[in-house]
Amino acid sequence: MKELEERIIKDGKCLSGGILKVDNFINHQMDSQLMFSCAAEFMRLFADKKIDKILTIEASGIAPAVFAGYLMRVPVVFAKKAVPKTMKDAFATEVQSFTKQRTYTVFVSKEYLNAGEHILVIDDFLACGNASLALAELCSQAGATVEGFGFLIEKAFQGGRASIAKNMPGTRVESLAAISSLDNGKIEFVKEGR
Amino acid sequence: MKELEERIIKDGKCLSGGILKVDNFINHQMDSQLMFSCAAEFMRLFADKKIDKILTIEASGIAPAVFAGYLMRVPVVFAKKAVPKTMKDAFATEVQSFTKQRTYTVFVSKEYLNAGEHILVIDDFLACGNASLALAELCSQAGATVEGFGFLIEKAFQGGRASIAKNMPGTRVESLAAISSLDNGKIEFVKEGR
Repeated sequence: MKELEERIIKDGKCLSGGILKVDNFINHQMDSQLMFSCAAEFMRLFADKKIDKILTIEASGIAPAVFAGYLMRVPVVFAKKAVPKTMKDAFATEVQSFTKQRTYTVFVSKEYLNAGEHILVIDDFLACGNASLALAELCSQAGATVEGFGFLIEKAFQGGRASIAKNMPGTRVESLAAISSLDNGKIEFVKEGR
Repeated sequence: MKELEERIIKDGKCLSGGILKVDNFINHQMDSQLMFSCAAEFMRLFADKKIDKILTIEASGIAPAVFAGYLMRVPVVFAKKAVPKTMKDAFATEVQSFTKQRTYTVFVSKEYLNAGEHILVIDDFLACGNASLALAELCSQAGATVEGFGFLIEKAFQGGRASIAKNMPGTRVESLAAISSLDNGKIEFVKEGR
Protein backbone atom coordinates (compact mmCIF):
# COMPACT_ATOMS: atom_id res chain seq x y z
CA MET A 1 0.00 0.00 0.00
CA LYS A 2 1.75 3.04 -1.35
CA GLU A 3 0.45 5.54 1.24
CA LEU A 4 1.77 3.42 4.11
CA GLU A 5 5.13 2.70 2.44
CA GLU A 6 5.65 6.41 1.81
CA ARG A 7 4.87 7.22 5.43
CA ILE A 8 7.30 4.54 6.64
CA ILE A 9 10.03 6.06 4.46
CA LYS A 10 9.19 9.57 5.69
CA ASP A 11 8.79 8.87 9.42
CA GLY A 12 10.08 5.36 10.17
CA LYS A 13 13.42 4.98 11.91
CA CYS A 14 15.71 1.96 11.77
CA LEU A 15 17.10 1.03 15.15
CA SER A 16 19.71 -1.61 15.85
CA GLY A 17 18.60 -5.24 16.05
CA GLY A 18 16.10 -5.19 13.19
CA ILE A 19 13.73 -2.81 14.93
CA LEU A 20 11.66 -0.36 12.90
CA LYS A 21 10.43 2.55 15.00
CA VAL A 22 7.10 3.89 13.75
CA ASP A 23 5.85 5.50 16.93
CA ASN A 24 5.23 8.77 15.08
CA PHE A 25 2.11 7.36 13.37
CA ILE A 26 1.35 3.85 14.70
CA ASN A 27 2.81 2.84 18.06
CA HIS A 28 2.53 5.91 20.26
CA GLN A 29 1.27 8.84 18.22
CA MET A 30 -1.38 7.57 15.79
CA ASP A 31 -2.47 8.95 12.45
CA SER A 32 -6.19 8.14 12.37
CA GLN A 33 -6.58 9.13 8.70
CA LEU A 34 -3.85 6.65 7.73
CA MET A 35 -5.28 3.96 10.02
CA PHE A 36 -8.68 4.42 8.35
CA SER A 37 -7.08 3.99 4.90
CA CYS A 38 -5.28 0.85 6.09
CA ALA A 39 -8.55 -0.54 7.46
CA ALA A 40 -10.24 0.11 4.11
CA GLU A 41 -7.46 -1.87 2.44
CA PHE A 42 -7.95 -4.77 4.88
CA MET A 43 -11.65 -4.74 4.03
CA ARG A 44 -10.82 -4.92 0.32
CA LEU A 45 -8.26 -7.72 0.78
CA PHE A 46 -10.64 -9.89 2.83
CA ALA A 47 -13.85 -8.98 0.97
CA ASP A 48 -14.30 -12.59 -0.20
CA LYS A 49 -14.15 -13.99 3.34
CA LYS A 50 -16.99 -14.28 5.83
CA ILE A 51 -15.74 -12.41 8.89
CA ASP A 52 -17.76 -12.38 12.14
CA LYS A 53 -15.24 -10.71 14.40
CA ILE A 54 -11.83 -9.05 14.44
CA LEU A 55 -9.25 -10.10 17.01
CA THR A 56 -6.23 -7.96 17.85
CA ILE A 57 -3.89 -7.44 20.80
CA GLU A 58 -3.36 -4.41 23.01
CA ALA A 59 -2.23 -1.72 22.52
CA SER A 60 -0.95 -0.92 19.02
CA GLY A 61 -3.27 -3.30 17.18
CA ILE A 62 -6.37 -1.52 18.46
CA ALA A 63 -6.36 1.50 16.13
CA PRO A 64 -6.27 -0.39 12.79
CA ALA A 65 -8.60 -3.05 14.21
CA VAL A 66 -11.37 -0.69 15.36
CA PHE A 67 -11.40 1.14 12.01
CA ALA A 68 -11.62 -2.22 10.23
CA GLY A 69 -14.41 -3.23 12.60
CA TYR A 70 -16.20 0.01 11.80
CA LEU A 71 -15.95 -0.50 8.04
CA MET A 72 -16.74 -4.22 8.15
CA ARG A 73 -19.47 -3.73 10.80
CA VAL A 74 -18.20 -6.48 13.10
CA PRO A 75 -17.18 -6.47 16.78
CA VAL A 76 -13.49 -6.11 17.65
CA VAL A 77 -11.90 -7.95 20.56
CA PHE A 78 -8.47 -7.09 21.87
CA ALA A 79 -6.46 -9.77 23.69
CA LYS A 80 -5.13 -8.53 27.02
CA LYS A 81 -1.66 -8.94 28.46
CA ALA A 82 -2.98 -9.10 32.03
CA VAL A 83 -6.20 -10.54 33.45
CA PRO A 84 -8.38 -7.79 34.90
CA LYS A 85 -10.16 -8.67 38.10
CA THR A 86 -13.49 -8.35 36.30
CA MET A 87 -12.58 -11.23 33.92
CA LYS A 88 -13.76 -14.57 35.23
CA ASP A 89 -12.83 -17.24 32.76
CA ALA A 90 -10.35 -16.76 29.92
CA PHE A 91 -8.57 -18.48 27.09
CA ALA A 92 -4.83 -17.99 27.62
CA THR A 93 -1.54 -18.76 25.92
CA GLU A 94 2.08 -17.62 25.99
CA VAL A 95 3.89 -15.33 23.54
CA GLN A 96 7.62 -14.89 23.10
CA SER A 97 8.10 -11.18 22.32
CA PHE A 98 10.69 -10.22 19.73
CA THR A 99 11.15 -6.54 20.63
CA LYS A 100 10.81 -7.03 24.38
CA GLN A 101 12.80 -10.27 24.59
CA ARG A 102 10.59 -11.83 27.21
CA THR A 103 7.62 -14.16 27.47
CA TYR A 104 4.16 -12.95 28.37
CA THR A 105 0.67 -14.42 28.50
CA VAL A 106 -2.27 -13.17 26.44
CA PHE A 107 -5.90 -13.59 27.47
CA VAL A 108 -9.32 -13.36 25.90
CA SER A 109 -12.44 -13.80 28.01
CA LYS A 110 -14.41 -16.92 27.10
CA GLU A 111 -17.40 -14.61 26.66
CA TYR A 112 -15.90 -13.01 23.55
CA LEU A 113 -14.55 -15.86 21.41
CA ASN A 114 -17.06 -18.52 20.45
CA ALA A 115 -17.15 -21.85 18.65
CA GLY A 116 -17.97 -21.48 14.96
CA GLU A 117 -16.96 -17.82 14.65
CA HIS A 118 -14.91 -16.68 11.65
CA ILE A 119 -12.09 -14.45 12.85
CA LEU A 120 -9.86 -11.92 11.11
CA VAL A 121 -6.68 -11.28 13.11
CA ILE A 122 -5.30 -7.75 12.72
CA ASP A 123 -2.07 -6.44 14.21
CA ASP A 124 0.46 -3.68 13.62
CA PHE A 125 3.53 -5.87 12.95
CA LEU A 126 4.33 -9.31 11.60
CA ALA A 127 7.86 -10.14 12.77
CA CYS A 128 8.54 -13.78 13.66
CA GLY A 129 4.83 -14.51 13.96
CA ASN A 130 4.69 -15.50 17.62
CA ALA A 131 2.00 -13.03 18.66
CA SER A 132 -0.11 -14.00 15.63
CA LEU A 133 0.14 -17.70 16.34
CA ALA A 134 -0.77 -17.03 19.97
CA LEU A 135 -3.93 -15.19 18.86
CA ALA A 136 -4.71 -18.12 16.55
CA GLU A 137 -4.21 -20.48 19.49
CA LEU A 138 -6.81 -18.52 21.49
CA CYS A 139 -9.22 -18.91 18.54
CA SER A 140 -8.44 -22.61 18.39
CA GLN A 141 -9.18 -23.00 22.12
CA ALA A 142 -12.56 -21.36 21.48
CA GLY A 143 -13.34 -23.51 18.44
CA ALA A 144 -13.29 -20.42 16.20
CA THR A 145 -11.72 -20.35 12.71
CA VAL A 146 -9.02 -17.88 11.67
CA GLU A 147 -9.96 -16.71 8.17
CA GLY A 148 -6.83 -14.64 7.77
CA PHE A 149 -4.21 -12.32 9.17
CA GLY A 150 -3.85 -8.65 8.28
CA PHE A 151 -0.76 -6.67 9.27
CA LEU A 152 0.17 -3.06 8.73
CA ILE A 153 3.87 -3.88 8.42
CA GLU A 154 5.60 -7.19 7.74
CA LYS A 155 9.28 -7.55 8.50
CA ALA A 156 9.72 -10.18 5.81
CA PHE A 157 13.27 -11.01 6.91
CA GLN A 158 12.09 -12.31 10.30
CA GLY A 159 10.22 -15.39 9.10
CA GLY A 160 6.70 -14.74 10.39
CA ARG A 161 4.98 -15.58 7.10
CA ALA A 162 6.78 -18.94 6.87
CA SER A 163 5.99 -19.69 10.50
CA ILE A 164 2.27 -19.06 9.95
CA ALA A 165 2.35 -21.12 6.71
CA LYS A 166 3.99 -24.02 8.56
CA ASN A 167 1.60 -23.95 11.52
CA MET A 168 -1.58 -22.98 9.69
CA PRO A 169 -1.18 -24.10 6.06
CA GLY A 170 -3.46 -22.33 3.61
CA THR A 171 -4.35 -19.44 5.92
CA ARG A 172 -4.24 -16.10 4.14
CA VAL A 173 -1.65 -13.56 5.30
CA GLU A 174 -1.80 -9.99 4.03
CA SER A 175 0.54 -7.14 4.91
CA LEU A 176 0.13 -3.57 3.71
CA ALA A 177 3.87 -2.87 3.66
CA ALA A 178 6.47 -5.66 3.53
CA ILE A 179 10.04 -4.79 4.43
CA SER A 180 12.82 -6.96 3.06
CA SER A 181 15.70 -5.35 4.90
CA LEU A 182 16.60 -2.75 7.53
CA ASP A 183 20.33 -3.31 7.07
CA ASN A 184 22.65 -0.33 7.39
CA GLY A 185 19.79 1.88 8.54
CA LYS A 186 18.06 1.68 5.15
CA ILE A 187 14.43 0.60 4.72
CA GLU A 188 13.98 -1.70 1.69
CA PHE A 189 10.56 -2.99 0.66
CA VAL A 190 9.77 -6.39 -0.82
CA LYS A 191 9.41 -6.02 -4.58
CA GLU A 192 5.92 -6.40 -6.02
CA GLY A 193 5.12 -9.74 -7.64
CA ARG A 194 7.19 -11.83 -5.24
CA MET B 1 -25.93 10.51 25.11
CA LYS B 2 -28.98 8.30 24.79
CA GLU B 3 -27.40 5.61 22.59
CA LEU B 4 -24.59 5.03 25.10
CA GLU B 5 -26.90 5.07 28.14
CA GLU B 6 -29.16 2.50 26.50
CA ARG B 7 -26.21 0.27 25.74
CA ILE B 8 -24.96 0.54 29.33
CA ILE B 9 -28.40 -0.51 30.59
CA LYS B 10 -28.52 -3.39 28.09
CA ASP B 11 -24.97 -4.75 28.47
CA GLY B 12 -23.34 -3.14 31.53
CA LYS B 13 -22.95 -5.19 34.68
CA CYS B 14 -22.63 -3.87 38.23
CA LEU B 15 -19.93 -5.62 40.20
CA SER B 16 -19.20 -5.16 43.88
CA GLY B 17 -17.12 -2.16 44.94
CA GLY B 18 -18.60 0.40 42.55
CA ILE B 19 -17.28 -1.29 39.43
CA LEU B 20 -19.27 -1.12 36.19
CA LYS B 21 -18.26 -3.87 33.78
CA VAL B 22 -18.68 -2.79 30.17
CA ASP B 23 -16.24 -5.16 28.52
CA ASN B 24 -18.92 -6.29 26.07
CA PHE B 25 -18.64 -3.03 24.07
CA ILE B 26 -15.78 -0.87 25.46
CA ASN B 27 -13.10 -2.56 27.55
CA HIS B 28 -12.43 -5.89 25.84
CA GLN B 29 -14.90 -6.39 23.00
CA MET B 30 -15.43 -3.03 21.28
CA ASP B 31 -18.41 -1.78 19.31
CA SER B 32 -16.80 0.41 16.63
CA GLN B 33 -20.12 1.85 15.44
CA LEU B 34 -20.89 3.04 18.98
CA MET B 35 -17.33 4.36 19.46
CA PHE B 36 -17.70 6.34 16.22
CA SER B 37 -20.97 7.86 17.48
CA CYS B 38 -19.33 8.76 20.79
CA ALA B 39 -16.42 10.39 18.94
CA ALA B 40 -18.87 12.45 16.87
CA GLU B 41 -20.44 13.64 20.12
CA PHE B 42 -17.02 14.63 21.51
CA MET B 43 -16.41 16.60 18.33
CA ARG B 44 -19.72 18.42 18.79
CA LEU B 45 -19.08 19.14 22.48
CA PHE B 46 -15.62 20.60 21.86
CA ALA B 47 -16.38 22.28 18.51
CA ASP B 48 -15.69 25.75 19.97
CA LYS B 49 -12.21 24.75 21.19
CA LYS B 50 -8.99 24.81 19.21
CA ILE B 51 -7.66 21.25 19.52
CA ASP B 52 -4.24 20.30 18.12
CA LYS B 53 -3.98 16.80 19.50
CA ILE B 54 -5.88 14.16 21.45
CA LEU B 55 -4.23 12.45 24.41
CA THR B 56 -5.51 9.17 25.85
CA ILE B 57 -4.13 6.22 27.78
CA GLU B 58 -3.72 2.58 26.77
CA ALA B 59 -5.65 0.43 26.21
CA SER B 60 -9.37 1.21 26.53
CA GLY B 61 -9.08 4.91 25.72
CA ILE B 62 -7.62 4.21 22.28
CA ALA B 63 -10.84 3.28 20.44
CA PRO B 64 -12.86 6.43 21.23
CA ALA B 65 -9.73 8.57 20.87
CA VAL B 66 -8.76 7.38 17.38
CA PHE B 67 -12.30 7.88 16.06
CA ALA B 68 -12.31 11.39 17.54
CA GLY B 69 -8.89 12.00 15.97
CA TYR B 70 -10.26 10.82 12.64
CA LEU B 71 -13.29 13.12 12.79
CA MET B 72 -11.35 16.12 14.16
CA ARG B 73 -8.38 15.44 11.86
CA VAL B 74 -5.76 15.66 14.62
CA PRO B 75 -3.06 13.22 15.81
CA VAL B 76 -3.82 10.95 18.76
CA VAL B 77 -1.20 10.06 21.35
CA PHE B 78 -1.69 7.29 23.88
CA ALA B 79 0.19 7.41 27.16
CA LYS B 80 1.97 4.15 27.90
CA LYS B 81 2.10 2.22 31.15
CA ALA B 82 5.62 0.93 30.47
CA VAL B 83 8.56 2.53 28.68
CA PRO B 84 9.42 0.65 25.49
CA LYS B 85 13.11 0.30 24.77
CA THR B 86 12.66 2.43 21.66
CA MET B 87 11.56 5.43 23.78
CA LYS B 88 14.46 7.64 24.74
CA ASP B 89 13.18 10.57 26.74
CA ALA B 90 9.71 10.73 28.27
CA PHE B 91 7.43 12.78 30.45
CA ALA B 92 6.31 10.58 33.35
CA THR B 93 4.02 10.70 36.35
CA GLU B 94 2.29 8.32 38.76
CA VAL B 95 -1.34 7.23 38.81
CA GLN B 96 -3.26 5.59 41.64
CA SER B 97 -5.61 3.12 39.96
CA PHE B 98 -9.12 2.76 41.37
CA THR B 99 -10.07 -0.59 39.81
CA LYS B 100 -6.64 -2.16 40.15
CA GLN B 101 -5.81 -0.73 43.60
CA ARG B 102 -2.18 -0.11 42.82
CA THR B 103 0.09 2.68 41.63
CA TYR B 104 1.59 2.74 38.15
CA THR B 105 3.57 5.20 36.07
CA VAL B 106 2.40 6.66 32.76
CA PHE B 107 4.73 7.90 30.05
CA VAL B 108 4.58 10.01 26.92
CA SER B 109 7.64 10.49 24.76
CA LYS B 110 8.90 14.08 24.73
CA GLU B 111 8.64 13.87 20.94
CA TYR B 112 4.84 13.77 21.05
CA LEU B 113 3.76 16.45 23.52
CA ASN B 114 4.96 19.96 22.78
CA ALA B 115 4.89 23.39 24.37
CA GLY B 116 1.97 25.48 23.14
CA GLU B 117 -0.18 22.57 21.96
CA HIS B 118 -3.89 22.51 22.77
CA ILE B 119 -4.84 19.07 24.03
CA LEU B 120 -8.15 17.25 24.37
CA VAL B 121 -7.92 14.37 26.84
CA ILE B 122 -10.21 11.42 26.04
CA ASP B 123 -10.69 8.33 28.16
CA ASP B 124 -13.22 5.59 28.72
CA PHE B 125 -14.00 6.26 32.42
CA LEU B 126 -13.96 9.17 34.83
CA ALA B 127 -13.91 7.67 38.32
CA CYS B 128 -11.90 9.54 40.95
CA GLY B 129 -10.01 11.47 38.29
CA ASN B 130 -6.50 10.25 39.04
CA ALA B 131 -5.68 9.01 35.54
CA SER B 132 -7.06 12.23 34.02
CA LEU B 133 -5.01 14.44 36.32
CA ALA B 134 -1.93 12.35 35.52
CA LEU B 135 -2.47 12.93 31.78
CA ALA B 136 -2.90 16.65 32.51
CA GLU B 137 0.35 16.57 34.49
CA LEU B 138 2.15 15.13 31.43
CA CYS B 139 0.71 18.01 29.36
CA SER B 140 1.85 20.47 32.00
CA GLN B 141 5.38 19.03 31.94
CA ALA B 142 5.39 19.58 28.18
CA GLY B 143 4.04 23.13 28.42
CA ALA B 144 0.87 22.08 26.58
CA THR B 145 -2.63 23.28 27.53
CA VAL B 146 -5.51 20.92 28.34
CA GLU B 147 -8.58 22.38 26.61
CA GLY B 148 -10.92 19.78 28.07
CA PHE B 149 -11.66 16.23 29.12
CA GLY B 150 -14.06 13.89 27.34
CA PHE B 151 -15.18 10.65 28.93
CA LEU B 152 -17.46 7.91 27.70
CA ILE B 153 -18.71 7.13 31.22
CA GLU B 154 -18.53 9.20 34.39
CA LYS B 155 -19.08 7.51 37.73
CA ALA B 156 -20.37 10.71 39.29
CA PHE B 157 -20.39 9.24 42.79
CA GLN B 158 -16.60 8.84 42.82
CA GLY B 159 -15.63 12.50 42.83
CA GLY B 160 -13.57 12.79 39.65
CA ARG B 161 -15.34 15.90 38.37
CA ALA B 162 -14.79 17.73 41.68
CA SER B 163 -11.15 16.64 41.75
CA ILE B 164 -10.54 18.02 38.26
CA ALA B 165 -12.41 21.25 39.15
CA LYS B 166 -10.26 21.68 42.25
CA ASN B 167 -6.93 21.02 40.50
CA MET B 168 -7.73 22.63 37.14
CA PRO B 169 -10.44 25.25 37.77
CA GLY B 170 -12.39 26.24 34.66
CA THR B 171 -11.34 23.25 32.57
CA ARG B 172 -14.26 21.75 30.70
CA VAL B 173 -15.27 18.19 31.59
CA GLU B 174 -17.78 16.34 29.40
CA SER B 175 -19.08 12.82 29.87
CA LEU B 176 -21.42 11.03 27.49
CA ALA B 177 -23.10 8.99 30.23
CA ALA B 178 -23.00 10.01 33.90
CA ILE B 179 -23.90 7.41 36.49
CA SER B 180 -25.15 8.58 39.87
CA SER B 181 -25.30 5.20 41.57
CA LEU B 182 -24.52 1.53 41.13
CA ASP B 183 -26.01 0.61 44.50
CA ASN B 184 -27.84 -2.70 44.85
CA GLY B 185 -26.76 -3.76 41.38
CA LYS B 186 -28.88 -1.05 39.73
CA ILE B 187 -27.48 1.50 37.25
CA GLU B 188 -28.88 5.02 37.86
CA PHE B 189 -27.98 7.93 35.60
CA VAL B 190 -27.51 11.54 36.65
CA LYS B 191 -30.67 13.48 35.82
CA GLU B 192 -30.45 15.99 32.96
CA GLY B 193 -30.12 19.63 33.96
CA ARG B 194 -27.91 19.04 36.99
